[in-house]
Amino acid sequence: MIRKLRPATYGEALHVGHYFRAGDPVVMDLNALPDEEARQLVDFAAGLICGRGGEMNRVCPKVFLLLPA
Amino acid sequence: MIRKLRPATYGEALHVGHYFRAGDPVVMDLNALPDEEARQLVDFAAGLICGRGGEMNRVCPKVFLLLPA
Repeated sequence: MIRKLRPATYGEALHVGHYFRAGDPVVMDLNALPDEEARQLVDFAAGLICGRGGEMNRVCPKVFLLLPA
Repeated sequence: MIRKLRPATYGEALHVGHYFRAGDPVVMDLNALPDEEARQLVDFAAGLICGRGGEMNRVCPKVFLLLPA
């Protein structure tokens, strides 16, 4: 099941991690965040993928699709 | 075996991930990086830990100990 998340705070990175770990593809929409925090989410997601495998695709300037391995 | 890394670029985050995935504790010394990039490494490490379990401890202002689960 594809999850669509639009985090409004950096803390919601944990939700991204939760679904990704469960094996669900996650559409991470960062348009609700200022650029600096959006960047933090991207770095967090990069670490998540480094840890578990999978990939991250940019689908719009501030929207990413995270695919678990 | 404890790994000590002092990244000089954000790209070296991959080395942190490599050792962490192998189960080695990593001392991540960010003193060679400007604050902005240091922050990126911390966010990356947070994602890594979210993905694989373990913990991150701050041992000095810009030095972190990452412990795999």
